[in-house]
Amino acid sequence: MLMTGQEYLESLRDGRKVYLGKELVEDVTTHSAFRNAAQSVAMIYDRKRATENRDIMVSKEDGEEFSTYYLMPKSREDLERRFETHRRIASWTYGLMGRSPDNFPSYATGLAMRPDLFDEVRPGFGDNMVNYYKHMRTNDIFAAHSVTNPQGARRPGVVEPSPEISPTLKVIAEDDNGVIVNGLKMLGTSAVFCHETWIGNLQPMSPGQELESITFGVPLNTPGISIWSRKPFEKFAVSEFDNPLSWRFDESDSAILFENVKIPWEKVVCHNNLEMTRNIYMSSPGHALANHQANIRFFEKLKLIVGVAGALVEANNVGHIPAVQGVLGHLAAMLASLEGMIMGQIQSGEEHAAGYHTINRRYMYGALHWCSNNHSQICDMVRELMGGGFFQMPADSSVFEDAAMSETFEKYWSVQGKTAKERMKLFRLGWDLLGSEFAGRHMQYEKFYAGPGHVMNLYSYFNCPWDDLKGLVDEIMSGYDAP
Amino acid sequence: MLMTGQEYLESLRDGRKVYLGKELVEDVTTHSAFRNAAQSVAMIYDRKRATENRDIMVSKEDGEEFSTYYLMPKSREDLERRFETHRRIASWTYGLMGRSPDNFPSYATGLAMRPDLFDEVRPGFGDNMVNYYKHMRTNDIFAAHSVTNPQGARRPGVVEPSPEISPTLKVIAEDDNGVIVNGLKMLGTSAVFCHETWIGNLQPMSPGQELESITFGVPLNTPGISIWSRKPFEKFAVSEFDNPLSWRFDESDSAILFENVKIPWEKVVCHNNLEMTRNIYMSSPGHALANHQANIRFFEKLKLIVGVAGALVEANNVGHIPAVQGVLGHLAAMLASLEGMIMGQIQSGEEHAAGYHTINRRYMYGALHWCSNNHSQICDMVRELMGGGFFQMPADSSVFEDAAMSETFEKYWSVQGKTAKERMKLFRLGWDLLGSEFAGRHMQYEKFYAGPGHVMNLYSYFNCPWDDLKGLVDEIMSGYDAP
Amino acid sequence: MLMTGQEYLESLRDGRKVYLGKELVEDVTTHSAFRNAAQSVAMIYDRKRATENRDIMVSKEDGEEFSTYYLMPKSREDLERRFETHRRIASWTYGLMGRSPDNFPSYATGLAMRPDLFDEVRPGFGDNMVNYYKHMRTNDIFAAHSVTNPQGARRPGVVEPSPEISPTLKVIAEDDNGVIVNGLKMLGTSAVFCHETWIGNLQPMSPGQELESITFGVPLNTPGISIWSRKPFEKFAVSEFDNPLSWRFDESDSAILFENVKIPWEKVVCHNNLEMTRNIYMSSPGHALANHQANIRFFEKLKLIVGVAGALVEANNVGHIPAVQGVLGHLAAMLASLEGMIMGQIQSGEEHAAGYHTINRRYMYGALHWCSNNHSQICDMVRELMGGGFFQMPADSSVFEDAAMSETFEKYWSVQGKTAKERMKLFRLGWDLLGSEFAGRHMQYEKFYAGPGHVMNLYSYFNCPWDDLKGLVDEIMSGYDAP
Amino acid sequence: MLMTGQEYLESLRDGRKVYLGKELVEDVTTHSAFRNAAQSVAMIYDRKRATENRDIMVSKEDGEEFSTYYLMPKSREDLERRFETHRRIASWTYGLMGRSPDNFPSYATGLAMRPDLFDEVRPGFGDNMVNYYKHMRTNDIFAAHSVTNPQGARRPGVVEPSPEISPTLKVIAEDDNGVIVNGLKMLGTSAVFCHETWIGNLQPMSPGQELESITFGVPLNTPGISIWSRKPFEKFAVSEFDNPLSWRFDESDSAILFENVKIPWEKVVCHNNLEMTRNIYMSSPGHALANHQANIRFFEKLKLIVGVAGALVEANNVGHIPAVQGVLGHLAAMLASLEGMIMGQIQSGEEHAAGYHTINRRYMYGALHWCSNNHSQICDMVRELMGGGFFQMPADSSVFEDAAMSETFEKYWSVQGKTAKERMKLFRLGWDLLGSEFAGRHMQYEKFYAGPGHVMNLYSYFNCPWDDLKGLVDEIMSGYDAP
Repeated sequence: MLMTGQEYLESLRDGRKVYLGKELVEDVTTHSAFRNAAQSVAMIYDRKRATENRDIMVSKEDGEEFSTYYLMPKSREDLERRFETHRRIASWTYGLMGRSPDNFPSYATGLAMRPDLFDEVRPGFGDNMVNYYKHMRTNDIFAAHSVTNPQGARRPGVVEPSPEISPTLKVIAEDDNGVIVNGLKMLGTSAVFCHETWIGNLQPMSPGQELESITFGVPLNTPGISIWSRKPFEKFAVSEFDNPLSWRFDESDSAILFENVKIPWEKVVCHNNLEMTRNIYMSSPGHALANHQANIRFFEKLKLIVGVAGALVEANNVGHIPAVQGVLGHLAAMLASLEGMIMGQIQSGEEHAAGYHTINRRYMYGALHWCSNNHSQICDMVRELMGGGFFQMPADSSVFEDAAMSETFEKYWSVQGKTAKERMKLFRLGWDLLGSEFAGRHMQYEKFYAGPGHVMNLYSYFNCPWDDLKGLVDEIMSGYDAP
Repeated sequence: MLMTGQEYLESLRDGRKVYLGKELVEDVTTHSAFRNAAQSVAMIYDRKRATENRDIMVSKEDGEEFSTYYLMPKSREDLERRFETHRRIASWTYGLMGRSPDNFPSYATGLAMRPDLFDEVRPGFGDNMVNYYKHMRTNDIFAAHSVTNPQGARRPGVVEPSPEISPTLKVIAEDDNGVIVNGLKMLGTSAVFCHETWIGNLQPMSPGQELESITFGVPLNTPGISIWSRKPFEKFAVSEFDNPLSWRFDESDSAILFENVKIPWEKVVCHNNLEMTRNIYMSSPGHALANHQANIRFFEKLKLIVGVAGALVEANNVGHIPAVQGVLGHLAAMLASLEGMIMGQIQSGEEHAAGYHTINRRYMYGALHWCSNNHSQICDMVRELMGGGFFQMPADSSVFEDAAMSETFEKYWSVQGKTAKERMKLFRLGWDLLGSEFAGRHMQYEKFYAGPGHVMNLYSYFNCPWDDLKGLVDEIMSGYDAP
Repeated sequence: MLMTGQEYLESLRDGRKVYLGKELVEDVTTHSAFRNAAQSVAMIYDRKRATENRDIMVSKEDGEEFSTYYLMPKSREDLERRFETHRRIASWTYGLMGRSPDNFPSYATGLAMRPDLFDEVRPGFGDNMVNYYKHMRTNDIFAAHSVTNPQGARRPGVVEPSPEISPTLKVIAEDDNGVIVNGLKMLGTSAVFCHETWIGNLQPMSPGQELESITFGVPLNTPGISIWSRKPFEKFAVSEFDNPLSWRFDESDSAILFENVKIPWEKVVCHNNLEMTRNIYMSSPGHALANHQANIRFFEKLKLIVGVAGALVEANNVGHIPAVQGVLGHLAAMLASLEGMIMGQIQSGEEHAAGYHTINRRYMYGALHWCSNNHSQICDMVRELMGGGFFQMPADSSVFEDAAMSETFEKYWSVQGKTAKERMKLFRLGWDLLGSEFAGRHMQYEKFYAGPGHVMNLYSYFNCPWDDLKGLVDEIMSGYDAP
Repeated sequence: MLMTGQEYLESLRDGRKVYLGKELVEDVTTHSAFRNAAQSVAMIYDRKRATENRDIMVSKEDGEEFSTYYLMPKSREDLERRFETHRRIASWTYGLMGRSPDNFPSYATGLAMRPDLFDEVRPGFGDNMVNYYKHMRTNDIFAAHSVTNPQGARRPGVVEPSPEISPTLKVIAEDDNGVIVNGLKMLGTSAVFCHETWIGNLQPMSPGQELESITFGVPLNTPGISIWSRKPFEKFAVSEFDNPLSWRFDESDSAILFENVKIPWEKVVCHNNLEMTRNIYMSSPGHALANHQANIRFFEKLKLIVGVAGALVEANNVGHIPAVQGVLGHLAAMLASLEGMIMGQIQSGEEHAAGYHTINRRYMYGALHWCSNNHSQICDMVRELMGGGFFQMPADSSVFEDAAMSETFEKYWSVQGKTAKERMKLFRLGWDLLGSEFAGRHMQYEKFYAGPGHVMNLYSYFNCPWDDLKGLVDEIMSGYDAP
């Protein structure tokens, strides 16, 4: 089944509890803090099934049609289809919504290629995983994952002095039907717009955290779940003209609180297993497929950033200056580098799970490292090109509502080839991308997208063929001895 | 005369025209977009004359008391007094208000040490400069400078296709009493809170721009002047708890529009002189004294940034991790480096203007370069320490108005040694400093504080003793020849 | 014809004039400054025709066998064959010889795909280009290019005050048979080991430089040509143990002086054409194919660098330290990034010249930019891991010739798991790679491999699809207007 | 007593055992690997007592004259005298000899200000320290310290599987007269040219290393001591013209081996004390005074580097290019920054040891951090300016011995305003500074001058006034509560 945008919006009116400060949001699809972002997701639902995109973005198996991001790839062509599906979805939000509907499904698709991993934890968990994947695929589910524990609460031994103060979600009881979980899970990006959330752990666990290793998917309207949204930037967008990106693309983040929520066994895929709660992502193609999507999403965002850089240069009439061309060239080189790194993942696909052909993990981790390590510098280069443009503009677009002011504004603020309004429009966009609170969240988001810096390093460290590389050293040195 | 804070506030109700979009602001001291920042300036006025600060911050000459930032320094002790005066003022706003009342006065003080420079332009202009300085000093005037031309309009030959479209302020008529000026001037930081603005040029001028070289001081309530404020962040501060810095310290930026404003000759210090309109700042100690203040202001801000870094580490219980200590140590080293660079300016003072002892220019430009080149990286390091803390917190502090929610919040969000509320308070502060729109403006502000990057390089390039340095090379090479 | 290593060495005894300071080198294959590097090239000749490599590295057309780097690619498979050919050659010298026998041939192959470009300059030049390509391919020629003008002499108008002081190679006469050229050409890397050199221009030319636009290939033993070698590091290698890389892999650089050398027309492919002397490389796939080889060569070198980093960490017993793992992980991520960027060039091949399928230029320029911008940092990271190891070792390996000293050395310098000799061997290798004069030349070489930094930026600037990127900005902004 | 250069040279002929590989060096003052550097030290001895320098560089106490670097400072003027003394010494070797005769004496001077620290370890050790200081001062001794343990041997528990394999110097026996020590100590920079070496520990020690905590000074000709020099670059300097810096300024590094050396108690200042063997440097002004010298030494070196950058730009006729001016300006800013940081240490002197006035530690550690963190980038910027100049020059200066070649060389390699020989001379100097093996050692040396990067961070971390900084955060937050 391929949901329409309208069906998607309706499906969100499901009784979920979303809190904005003390306010309980009745309907996220109409609330001024969320409605436009909800429309953006609905737009994705509509477009991915539209005629012009079906060839690529809809796949079929056993007579069932589903979004191509659920396709288990077996060939280079499958990888190219997945790539193009991710790319189009990302392009529709200019890469600004990280947990779009194709992100977690890429995890789920990869996880479901290795049911044996889950059966190792407990026989039957493998079926649970495959069924969950099929459930998502068949029902065109939008789920995102919450796989991080609350900050400041991560040191075993230090935290949780008493059973009542237990910030981190864990199992507090279990019976034949399932488990009861209690506690917080972070960082529910997009949770407000998702049907379900996937609970698990991406960071290493320590002995004593066994009950936190529980892993499952759950609908967000399940009794006992509440979604505590961070400050929503859409709410503070002055107008679309003044904040064109915050207006439509704030995917939101939330703490998700579970107050004694019952999870049936058939939704559980890991329990009481410190190793496997994390390893399932790496030992299956799940982590690789999902972060391949992240690379592509970042790439589409980078296109916008570089495009804005080019437009700002044009608007400021500085494109003839060699140093400015140099900065643009540097940005262009970075864009091409990332694109190359992504295409290389397809060129050098691998059989990570038996019977499947998935993207090259090592290059993907290289690209992931590149993205999180270069985002700040990229933004800083564009800030350099932006100069003080935003600060020279009126406080907001209400200036156009007053004919006399509007005229004065045009008279003094226009430059050759650009009206004052065009310039203001562009600087508003540039600022929303690089200077606004929405932009500030992106600075933080990209830096921590797949974990803190040292984790980014370790992904590449552990995937590096050290024996081959040190073999080169031995090879050289074996050719001679001291005289 | 040393104004009280109350007198200062009253003096702003002077009929000035401030626009917020289409809205004409009646009284900046009470308007929700500006009132707290106005109070912050008033606080500076009160404190600098308070008993505990008078020894340092008030100076006396010919029986007249004035703020020490008007002191023309003649000794190391004078420089130390100026330093401490700037430092205290900066500390009261944590370095977040760049154009505090001691910034432009430092320019004026330096300019007035060299009346001869102005007399070169036109006899009598030297007296004008000295009189303007005395006027400011005697009346405890808060003025700031607007010495940049509108972006995109800076290429002679390209801009101004017709006389009507003239974005850049210039003289359009003159008579025996003075000149008439028309056009825009940027970037009126703090203009909303100033008594007067200083109009001039800090960037190089090209032939054809002679009429733009006009330089003068003018009260901001002069008929024909309007102040077009950029988006004010104070207006969007949710509460002091939620945005403690935007709440009080948004100094604002504005485009200042002059529509046929009459400037009497006695206020003019430069006219029709492309070279001198800029050189007066460098050939006198003006630029050096004002940017020395900027160094000190940045230093006080850096103390807050590093302090927040330390507090975040503590709140997240990660202070025991060597890599985290390393980041803090790196920040601490940078703080000490900058402090050293500033104190060195005092240690190696110089006689830039005959009869005066001013700070070492070369070190000041080095420090200025350091600040604008390192600010982004510093912020990025603290972002790394901040992690996702802000995003894990409720949308706003209204959560504390609901007892049940407040209790749930404490139960799940608190960590050992910190209540949830304390943590939220800290993360709000950290975010306002590094992630909010207020923070985004600071990213741009520090990068361009004293001009774009290449200008920062050139200040040091032109002040470098190249002959001495190349002399070292010659010295070595003179000691030998080819065998 | 595929030359053997022995045939190659013999072919270098051709009467060429190579100067080492004032010394005329009689035979580069036996001289202590060059013999080992000559052997390294001979090794490449032998290995590329060896049984185990023929499948990939030898191609056939019209019954003629030739090195695969002369293959004009028409499919992804051809690009994969070229890639693997370059990779193996680079691996045999650990990427330390930049102008290996497959470098310039890649230019020549690309140039010969577009004879029409040369015919534009002068009818018949197209045939000359194709014939030169065939000559090289058929005779297994090792040629390298000298396409840079002498430093300090590049400003037209400034240089050449008199006709006698003409550092830059140019045509000084022409007749029916050909042209006479005079002057210097840089930077003849590998020239000492090449059969021929290709003379041309990669930097932009200015009016007045028409006679310098001459482009041709010429055997290096042609009368009037002399090769002035820079300081050869092989000559100063203490022993293979002490300098294992300088010992074998110093490809050398030389200024090539032409004193009235006659070049027949059939070898000339450009003359009197400021645009085309440079554009032939960009308008044909020449520049792209050759710099694709450069990417691969750098990649193999990077493998050695990262391998040495891993081995140093092991030798110093610091592999358990998280920060050290982080540095290794960072290096591993960079290695994977570059590999991905290269494979992406194959995945996204393009029809740059009609009828051929060549690598993706844009990604190649991205990778080239990446290499020249990251090499210093990479080396610096490994220096950090290397510490003072080299300095703790004896002056040279003669210590092993004295039994008592050798015993003392083992007693005090060995560590658990490594003899002192093994450690010294490794540190010698690390130092030769990162600290020696050979290493110093590589620092400079990689930075300027394909031109100075601003040229690297411009390659990407000019290949960037700016219209598409700015189109994204227009697309967003077209969706809304001021309220 | 103030030694003459001649006396100094004679004093080195003292029977010391210096090994170059297997070769025992008979006389370091005449051996081709060391003689010129020995002359450079002798030059320092001569100049510091020369008439024109006595005022500053010679101090007097109780009728005794001594080098000012032994002055225990009690005022700003004393600090200024010390600064200028260090600066002149550094300037004579362009900052290229790190352990000049004023380096360790600065440690000793600081240590002797706190005899109480040593008496804590064992009563009487305080007197030993003071006596050692006086001995050095009175006899104008050149000593340097060896306070690092061999690499790879630093993990207790891992190393030293048997008592015979004990790389790290430790006490193996003690009696009433003193201790017997055995093992290696690193990294004896300048040891070859010193009268004595100081043995101790600057890195943290772990339990089990008690016997390694021994700290003492000892003449280098003491029986049982041998000095194993690393590869000497002076030996491989082709000529002064070809390697002007390696020729004269290779201070050398050595492993110092103690084979059962007897140290009398009166020379011992620490024993069996893991804490104090390291803390003596930090708890006294020793570390601060010595690293202040290091800052100044680096500053003088930076002057040469920046001077060479300026000269290269001139020689290449590129000084008119804005981007090149920008790079020079950036370098100039860095030079001024460091100079400022050093002068600030004097401006903000402190009473670290009771009764003395020493430099500001915090700024010194900031500057030290700055130097080790910026040296690579600085060199890289100059490499960018240097281009391929070195590689375009003949192999060595023998070219000038052949009249015909010399003429050809001038004819083709000269540029407007510079003879070919002048250019070669400059490029030789630039290369020796930035590309030679001597330069490679400096890359490593500056990076590790005062320890690895994380140690640099920690020095600043531990000296940072965290309470004050976090107090600012508390101060802000104390001013408001949730609404």
